[in-house]
Amino acid sequence: MDPLYQGVLAAVERLAGVAHRTPVLTSRSLDEVTGNTVFLKCENFQRMGAFKFRGAYNAISRLSPAAAARGVITYSSGNHAQAVALAGRLLGVKTTVVMPSDAPAVKLAATRKYGAEVVTYDRATMNREDLAAKLMAEHGYELIPPFNHPDVIAGQGTAARELIDEVFSLDMLLVPCGGGGLLSGCAVYTRNTLPDCRIIGVEPATADDATRSFKTGTLQKIRNPQTIADGLRTESLGSITFPAIQKNVDEMITVSDADILDTMYYLWTRMKIVVEPSGATALAPLFKGLLPVKGKRVGVILSGGNVDVRQAGELFADVADL
Amino acid sequence: MDPLYQGVLAAVERLAGVAHRTPVLTSRSLDEVTGNTVFLKCENFQRMGAFKFRGAYNAISRLSPAAAARGVITYSSGNHAQAVALAGRLLGVKTTVVMPSDAPAVKLAATRKYGAEVVTYDRATMNREDLAAKLMAEHGYELIPPFNHPDVIAGQGTAARELIDEVFSLDMLLVPCGGGGLLSGCAVYTRNTLPDCRIIGVEPATADDATRSFKTGTLQKIRNPQTIADGLRTESLGSITFPAIQKNVDEMITVSDADILDTMYYLWTRMKIVVEPSGATALAPLFKGLLPVKGKRVGVILSGGNVDVRQAGELFADVADL
Repeated sequence: MDPLYQGVLAAVERLAGVAHRTPVLTSRSLDEVTGNTVFLKCENFQRMGAFKFRGAYNAISRLSPAAAARGVITYSSGNHAQAVALAGRLLGVKTTVVMPSDAPAVKLAATRKYGAEVVTYDRATMNREDLAAKLMAEHGYELIPPFNHPDVIAGQGTAARELIDEVFSLDMLLVPCGGGGLLSGCAVYTRNTLPDCRIIGVEPATADDATRSFKTGTLQKIRNPQTIADGLRTESLGSITFPAIQKNVDEMITVSDADILDTMYYLWTRMKIVVEPSGATALAPLFKGLLPVKGKRVGVILSGGNVDVRQAGELFADVADL
Repeated sequence: MDPLYQGVLAAVERLAGVAHRTPVLTSRSLDEVTGNTVFLKCENFQRMGAFKFRGAYNAISRLSPAAAARGVITYSSGNHAQAVALAGRLLGVKTTVVMPSDAPAVKLAATRKYGAEVVTYDRATMNREDLAAKLMAEHGYELIPPFNHPDVIAGQGTAARELIDEVFSLDMLLVPCGGGGLLSGCAVYTRNTLPDCRIIGVEPATADDATRSFKTGTLQKIRNPQTIADGLRTESLGSITFPAIQKNVDEMITVSDADILDTMYYLWTRMKIVVEPSGATALAPLFKGLLPVKGKRVGVILSGGNVDVRQAGELFADVADL
């Protein structure tokens, strides 16, 4: 049995009663628009607002008592930082997050609010890896990386497990892809549970490193990719996520930022849910009619909802009314 | 047995498989903030985005075949218009909606999109009641009023029925109040099902006609009340809703527009759901700590989610960050 799949099964037990079992939403309107029966796994309703809590909690809860007593560290200015902070607080493990000193004040404050010690650095003169390495050497902190870690991947896979547990069968599963933690975990679980389900990873067109890696069979990297989907700006897949995706994913596709924003506007306006750009990405190809699929049962992971709602006017300025 | 209560029970059958059984959301964070166990009945997820569909569909489906063949009419520029339009389309009944010619183009378009014929009038020279009366005389249309109608009230009461069916017991129920259709229907159902549940109607402070009517025992009216909660700008309760509220409601309270917006911002930002100002009103007194209640099971009706999300920046300009 694939050890990542075993990892997901073990993570299910660890997360029970801790992570939210997020709702699966359906919509007649969305089914009509797409010509399929669509199941939206709403990880925007997860604790701290994104699936990242699953992986962070699973990884931290797997530490040895000695490692847990020393504490953990991560570098991220996004959802993973808050996930590690919250999971650490719940598990009584000290957390340190390395963030650039010019990160948005609201993100620094939110990460501190969840209980992490935030260590800032000047981007002009330092890099985060060096700073983290120094702190790890000094304090013996364990690094909790954002995606390239078996326990993180296993935690993220529990989202697919809950979805399939609720809807029983799926013909297709759409998952957003940044560093590939969510996609790896969901794909390995789904491949082992529903062997005939078509598993598709979705990336922003301007951050298509994973799609190109998948198609060429060689790890590709994009320096500082620009896309509205800030959670998917990862430069490349990792040494664990890349082979897991090669093994378990059927297809990788890309969508434009404009299509992501159209989809996001639909989710806010018609479905009445707040989803961040990364969170709307996996639905975009289906919503925009870019996939040759009709009459099927399609699962979609909406990965998160952490976005400044006051920015909606600017985000949706160029989106056509529905 | 109260005929309105019987009406709710009958409406349950009529709406089965037609209205959405909307989800009841819970949140650890909200429970911590309020010190209670809170159940949010999410009518923002209802068809056309608000509870109004329940009453409109129930009322139109009760028409005689002859009346149904002639068609129905209503005057509203809000959720009730779209509810009548959608319900009419589903039931094969022609619908006419009287709206001012200077109503927002997006509302005129949305009402037409749901299938209604929209008849506009110049607010400077005509009033909507006269125009509707003229069309009724000419075509034999049946009027579907927005709240003061037993079948409309009965339909709205099914929201409370579903909530209680799902959570079994409640110590308190909070319902927003405009014309009192939703409050009447929910109160009569709850009073007859959970006699000890405290039932509270919530109004914007600047549109407190129902609160003053309730306290004085005499119907009060406010001309053109101004509040951010546009769905609650009704000038007074009706001849059916006022006595139903006197009989079944324990207390009426008011909240400021600022408190409504704080609550709405919390719902968008933390709960990740799009709720309109009227829809956030019933939660506001609990969220802002204005009610002397702790450790109780509190149900709250979030009545709708139809708001231009592009306006979020302006709506939340004065709201403090969480």
